[in-house]
Amino acid sequence: MKIGVFDSGVGGLTVLRALLPRMPSAEYIYLGDTARLPYGSKSQATIARYATTSAQFLAARGAEFLVIACNTASALALDDIRQAVSVPVVGVIETGADAARRSSSTADVMVIATDATVASHAYSSACRERGLHAIEKACPLLVPLVEEGWIDHPVTREVLEIYLSELMQDTARQGMNPDTLVLGCTHYPLLREQIERAVPSSISVIDSAEATAEGVAARLGVKTPAGDTGAVCRFYATDSVEKFRRLGSRFLGQPVLHVELVDLGG
Amino acid sequence: MKIGVFDSGVGGLTVLRALLPRMPSAEYIYLGDTARLPYGSKSQATIARYATTSAQFLAARGAEFLVIACNTASALALDDIRQAVSVPVVGVIETGADAARRSSSTADVMVIATDATVASHAYSSACRERGLHAIEKACPLLVPLVEEGWIDHPVTREVLEIYLSELMQDTARQGMNPDTLVLGCTHYPLLREQIERAVPSSISVIDSAEATAEGVAARLGVKTPAGDTGAVCRFYATDSVEKFRRLGSRFLGQPVLHVELVDLGG
Repeated sequence: MKIGVFDSGVGGLTVLRALLPRMPSAEYIYLGDTARLPYGSKSQATIARYATTSAQFLAARGAEFLVIACNTASALALDDIRQAVSVPVVGVIETGADAARRSSSTADVMVIATDATVASHAYSSACRERGLHAIEKACPLLVPLVEEGWIDHPVTREVLEIYLSELMQDTARQGMNPDTLVLGCTHYPLLREQIERAVPSSISVIDSAEATAEGVAARLGVKTPAGDTGAVCRFYATDSVEKFRRLGSRFLGQPVLHVELVDLGG
Repeated sequence: MKIGVFDSGVGGLTVLRALLPRMPSAEYIYLGDTARLPYGSKSQATIARYATTSAQFLAARGAEFLVIACNTASALALDDIRQAVSVPVVGVIETGADAARRSSSTADVMVIATDATVASHAYSSACRERGLHAIEKACPLLVPLVEEGWIDHPVTREVLEIYLSELMQDTARQGMNPDTLVLGCTHYPLLREQIERAVPSSISVIDSAEATAEGVAARLGVKTPAGDTGAVCRFYATDSVEKFRRLGSRFLGQPVLHVELVDLGG
């Protein structure tokens, strides 16, 4: 089984990282569209154009199953991608909303994500379809903070406190009783501990990367992972392979090797 | 005189803002390559490709003089741009270094900029050619903080203190006696007051947008601005014109009207 994983950058490697132990005998090809990132601040038309060419690239390289590990592309371009390729496509929003439904008792959930993901209200819609009420909050500084490497850093704690207290105030104003927080961006799992410390302990934090890997394994009928850990991973990037290797290793949790530069135009 | 001003986004509007009172009777066309921003984190090859197509677009629209208001493109792609178009091209690095030379008595200067600008050492080279010793510091969080609108904000003050105290420590370690700080990114003029408060009062802060406008006016032989303030400005963006208008007005200091969407491919 050859699984294609796509993200605008290295963040989707948190999804690949979660897939590896669940399906260790699959073959993975990963594309980071680093020449055109970030998607999070761009328009739907532009994101759809970038995401479909990226998905087509992975399909052309033999991917039999596509995981859209980019929240923004999942939110804004999933239908476009499904029309552009003939293989099954799973996005992180649906699987994140599925995990929120399993987690929440109060049916009130919070989602933090990029500007574009929040503006699309894709999480709200996916949650509504599952009988949940979601409130979304854009946290545009978290990606640059993660990329700066300021993980366990006072500034990051302060920024998280500001964003999360504003979010909690919004839920209170709306009379909500949230018990679940979805990390709706692939960079956020690196801040999971800091986020868990910044919210009341009654709140369950859902990592959409983990949720997606679970969803993909379920969809492909994988129950118990084989002992085999010889997964083959190939990496492609549309910009500097050196930077992809360097930043990517932090997200994958292991060294990223053999990155190939590809030109998708533009 | 039709002057083309190019930036990866809205930041270059600080340069246009500085040009307007100096050359109020010129006609301006501004291109923000917002579909492909930010350039600051990308590779030289990618930046050169994006910047030359952008410059060619402005030349094709009749620009008789090009101002590269993007520090990253000025640092990494000025020669490529000059080869790609037949009109005169001025970048922000040279004019910033000229202003630093006029300002500095100790010949030791500091520059803050994006990752890519710093990695190129374009400011160091331009300063060295002018008999100055420059030390450069990448401040990747400042652009997202400005775009979040956190201008006079405790987090921004804290981030500035961290970056600038690291920079001052580096100058001390090198036995430098800096008296000048160049703002080597078009977003930074919005933080000028905060930056001036965070450095010793003996340090002169050079705004590369102002420096560039002065340099362009000098190059074009404009001495005293005419009373005329009827400058015509046309704006083009490669992504959401609505977002360009909204964010851009903050940088231009006046409403941005008539933004036209253009497709440069990619």
